[in-house]
Amino acid sequence: METLDEESIIRLLWGGFGAGSHSGAVGDPFNDDAAWVRNSRRKKFLVAKADMMVASTDAPPGMTPEQMARKAVVACVSDLAAKGVKPSYCLVSLGLPKKLANTSFISGIASGFSRAEAEYGLKIIGGDTNSTLEDPIFDCSVFGYSDILIKRSGARIGDLVGVSGKFGYPPAGLLLLMGKAKSSDPYFNDRARQSVLEPQARLDLGLRAARLLSSCIDCSDGLAISLYHLAQSSGVDFELSKAPAGEGLDGFASENSLDPNELVFYGGEEYELVCTFNPRHSLMLSRLGISVIGSVVSRKEEKEGAAPKVTFESSVLPRRGWLHFKS
Amino acid sequence: METLDEESIIRLLWGGFGAGSHSGAVGDPFNDDAAWVRNSRRKKFLVAKADMMVASTDAPPGMTPEQMARKAVVACVSDLAAKGVKPSYCLVSLGLPKKLANTSFISGIASGFSRAEAEYGLKIIGGDTNSTLEDPIFDCSVFGYSDILIKRSGARIGDLVGVSGKFGYPPAGLLLLMGKAKSSDPYFNDRARQSVLEPQARLDLGLRAARLLSSCIDCSDGLAISLYHLAQSSGVDFELSKAPAGEGLDGFASENSLDPNELVFYGGEEYELVCTFNPRHSLMLSRLGISVIGSVVSRKEEKEGAAPKVTFESSVLPRRGWLHFKS
Repeated sequence: METLDEESIIRLLWGGFGAGSHSGAVGDPFNDDAAWVRNSRRKKFLVAKADMMVASTDAPPGMTPEQMARKAVVACVSDLAAKGVKPSYCLVSLGLPKKLANTSFISGIASGFSRAEAEYGLKIIGGDTNSTLEDPIFDCSVFGYSDILIKRSGARIGDLVGVSGKFGYPPAGLLLLMGKAKSSDPYFNDRARQSVLEPQARLDLGLRAARLLSSCIDCSDGLAISLYHLAQSSGVDFELSKAPAGEGLDGFASENSLDPNELVFYGGEEYELVCTFNPRHSLMLSRLGISVIGSVVSRKEEKEGAAPKVTFESSVLPRRGWLHFKS
Repeated sequence: METLDEESIIRLLWGGFGAGSHSGAVGDPFNDDAAWVRNSRRKKFLVAKADMMVASTDAPPGMTPEQMARKAVVACVSDLAAKGVKPSYCLVSLGLPKKLANTSFISGIASGFSRAEAEYGLKIIGGDTNSTLEDPIFDCSVFGYSDILIKRSGARIGDLVGVSGKFGYPPAGLLLLMGKAKSSDPYFNDRARQSVLEPQARLDLGLRAARLLSSCIDCSDGLAISLYHLAQSSGVDFELSKAPAGEGLDGFASENSLDPNELVFYGGEEYELVCTFNPRHSLMLSRLGISVIGSVVSRKEEKEGAAPKVTFESSVLPRRGWLHFKS
């Protein structure tokens, strides 16, 4: 029997749910970072995101139970950060294989959840515990209320494209942790590994910048695909003038015969915000730490349903990212 | 290294979270069916429940993908039903092994989620898709708003103990589906199997009865342990006069040399409501379909922290239920 790729699965599985099938102020979660519903009377958004972390896929070698649990929460917090929404509450479901049902592993997990609570000011209000065959599984659902919401669909022609940080550390860190690359730069070595083991959600930035951004996404599947998602939802194209490479990334790439732009655009798990905004907000956003990497231009192909284009230094950036189920 | 049982894991993992660690109107979700937070200004409860279904543990032989997806939602709906709260929204995370990433399996899952939406009037507003090594995993988070909330802790001496239906069908159905038992009674055979494959959450009943109940729990881990949970949270003992056996259960038990009371009290997955209420509400609750099986009495052991007792026909009912990680 055929094996579907992730995009086909998502279309087949979730196509009938969300905005398409419901009347009322419900978001289209399957085309945005988080789901939302809006109370028509109170005008508040309830914004929610569930994210499953499967240790065999998502936990690199060397990651402690504490770091796994923390990362599971960070991934959800990052999605709400990209919507400009403060996560208030979190539910956690845990699947544990019997071989890991010991005090050391469990205490580590509890401590990781506590750290995430403290770092992001949310409350873990419920949990469910289950046994699995092989894999530790962490599924977090976070939710929060907000007056505003930054969607993926708001980028306008003439806006600037910005990012909240540097890219390429996590893919480099993963190669280093897996022993598939080396680095003679101790600063880079440490920062790249830490970016994988202790990722940071850009929550403060997302909340401060919320009213100034026209669209936003968190970069968990890679910079290129994140840009394509924004361009697709907004019906525009992007022209990039800059690859926001991490410091020391060029050296690491040449030391390991890798393409630095591949690491920047196709790494993933940066948890940085990728956004667009009106140029009049440039100064303010630059002070908050957003760097400009390009601009929003009109869709080249004018016909209905045409695919978006993201170009970098006048070449089209291939549209691919990190997908589950790829062969 | 030692393998902890589920109760120890829950204590170790969740002990620092929930009501214990937070000020404000946050429930103690690790000792109730669902988690809640209360908005002090609007006096509304936001009630939420996450439940993970691991196919290798929770899906019996013969269960279709549609039935698995539906059951994952039903389990959460049942928890909110026991709190007297209507679930409005649902987030779903799905973990799929590559071997099941095909059109037939995925379409079945989508159709199961659609059925659950229609049956219980909730909206699936978000989803996450992941790859797992072996097991299909369904994690649902449902949430809803309510003015009231039935806790586990409200049972009072003199209250009656009631149940919303008959017990023992699911454990019998599981034995039948696994080919470990037989039944010459076609009605019982069908009903027992259906109770496993197509469980029903008692949502209408939970909502209608909400203002009349002093405490409530959904029976997913077995009737005996559910009664112990209510007694424990409420600081009381229970005396049962009746075992609410399903029709045909005695015949099935004798045909297969099983103890019918074992099936009634230690089966689990009935998704019936187990509740207590003031006797003045008996008539009304009987009309809604609640049957009386006993009464609430004072805790025999008066000393602080004494364990609750649930007796049936003057004998103490052993305190055990269905636990993950049991050897």
